[in-house]
Amino acid sequence: MLEKFFPKDFNFFDFFDKEMSYAEEACDLFKGIAAKGEVGTEDREKMREIEHSGDKMAYAIIEHLNKTFITPFDREDIHTLAKKLDDVNDMLNTIVSRMKVYKIKEPNKLLIEFSEIIEKAVCALGVAVRGLRDTKHMNKVVEACKQVSAYESEGDKLRDNALGWLVDNEKDPIEFIKWKEIYQEAETVLDICKVVGHVVETILVKQA
Amino acid sequence: MLEKFFPKDFNFFDFFDKEMSYAEEACDLFKGIAAKGEVGTEDREKMREIEHSGDKMAYAIIEHLNKTFITPFDREDIHTLAKKLDDVNDMLNTIVSRMKVYKIKEPNKLLIEFSEIIEKAVCALGVAVRGLRDTKHMNKVVEACKQVSAYESEGDKLRDNALGWLVDNEKDPIEFIKWKEIYQEAETVLDICKVVGHVVETILVKQA
Amino acid sequence: MLEKFFPKDFNFFDFFDKEMSYAEEACDLFKGIAAKGEVGTEDREKMREIEHSGDKMAYAIIEHLNKTFITPFDREDIHTLAKKLDDVNDMLNTIVSRMKVYKIKEPNKLLIEFSEIIEKAVCALGVAVRGLRDTKHMNKVVEACKQVSAYESEGDKLRDNALGWLVDNEKDPIEFIKWKEIYQEAETVLDICKVVGHVVETILVKQA
Repeated sequence: MLEKFFPKDFNFFDFFDKEMSYAEEACDLFKGIAAKGEVGTEDREKMREIEHSGDKMAYAIIEHLNKTFITPFDREDIHTLAKKLDDVNDMLNTIVSRMKVYKIKEPNKLLIEFSEIIEKAVCALGVAVRGLRDTKHMNKVVEACKQVSAYESEGDKLRDNALGWLVDNEKDPIEFIKWKEIYQEAETVLDICKVVGHVVETILVKQA
Repeated sequence: MLEKFFPKDFNFFDFFDKEMSYAEEACDLFKGIAAKGEVGTEDREKMREIEHSGDKMAYAIIEHLNKTFITPFDREDIHTLAKKLDDVNDMLNTIVSRMKVYKIKEPNKLLIEFSEIIEKAVCALGVAVRGLRDTKHMNKVVEACKQVSAYESEGDKLRDNALGWLVDNEKDPIEFIKWKEIYQEAETVLDICKVVGHVVETILVKQA
Repeated sequence: MLEKFFPKDFNFFDFFDKEMSYAEEACDLFKGIAAKGEVGTEDREKMREIEHSGDKMAYAIIEHLNKTFITPFDREDIHTLAKKLDDVNDMLNTIVSRMKVYKIKEPNKLLIEFSEIIEKAVCALGVAVRGLRDTKHMNKVVEACKQVSAYESEGDKLRDNALGWLVDNEKDPIEFIKWKEIYQEAETVLDICKVVGHVVETILVKQA
């Protein structure tokens, strides 16, 4: 009788797992691009596809949310989680787009460092988001959220170092502008990860 | 008896139509300024006035929302629609302010292209927002929202072309900085239009 | 019996007062730094601490909000107020971080002016936020919110003057980039103050 409130064919956890996997895919691709130091035509296309798939997944979650009466956790938290998780892909896509437009052709040590911190943060985020399904192992989720926050602080320091390097060494103003933008966007990916971690923490607090 | 829940003198649809018309006015003015390539003192003043009127309208909607018990659609969607629609004027006002401060004096081909895409997006948005009033012709609204989204993608490509042009041709770093900012803000107007379109789609989904 | 709904040891007003006092502290510190024109190692550390304390306070408010059944005003307004008030510290911390990284060593007349407007806006905000506790003197709160809005307009004009000054006088593109960023961030502090003021106004309207 309550079946229509619990639609068999829609499970929010499955959808968040899928959305999370797009963020992981985008993150892997970005790490490879940073290592190569150049955005190939195929990379550009692949990143755009991931971003598009993530976008569709986020809207599917929100659309189902709007049609569903009973949800596993607060409606507003589902909405925020779907949107903010999608912002991870969006920002990685923006960086890759900028690298292509700015004709970056060489690996950049600092960008590689950013890509490694981003990978760790997204990996911890995967533990947090996938852990929401099972309320028995909440400590693991709390721990993962703390890690995300720590990676964001690491990113802050790296951004300061990166801008400091530019001020001391980059005499070409156009190059200064390009790299300042790319470094700041890379740090923004970590800011977004931190926000997603906070949404997960909020969900935990409400269920406690 | 229920009269106080349906105040005769306040109709959300009328107010959204009015707020929409400010966005259209701002958009027309911006298109004219882009074509001329220069911001006259009167243009600057006019844009500020439109932005101010739009602001007042958005706050009037939110104030009435907070005093009204029954609303034609979800409270949070009314709030978001009022705010985001206002962001269109805000961003156009910012661009015009920057053009004036940066002493732009010549028409710029790429900015003219942006102004034309923005006009098309705002026009489609007008169809979407005004269409909310009558639930009988929902296909028209859905179609208009899709168009807004397509114009945003067009804007993304134009922004990439514009930044690519700067990288290849603009050797004066100060000019590079000015135009990079203006182009990115112009693309942001289209991002905002896309967000407004999504709010309209959300309202439709909930009413389906 | 209703005791658990009104926890004796948690008072939202006390917590907002405390969060407000961190914003005031950050603002004082920033004014001193702007006057000196240089960020000492101790200043940097102190600002980071204030930002961190503000952050913890905002999350304490949100965590208690999520565990509390009855609140003195709308839940979403408590959430927004806690977050946006925290953004004041975040942005001041960002400016100080940038000044340090960009190796600013001399007082800058325009930045001093910004720090003075920010001080006035944060002071008016203190009257508004602290005034929420006592619904008897609402006119004072309304007046303070109007003042915040007026300071934000003053900040807009100062930002335009500052950017105009850079365009006319700053021939070194790297210096142009640094100061453009700092001036725009200083103006963003005032934008955030305006948003906080609007949240306070929203709370008043709902209680009217």
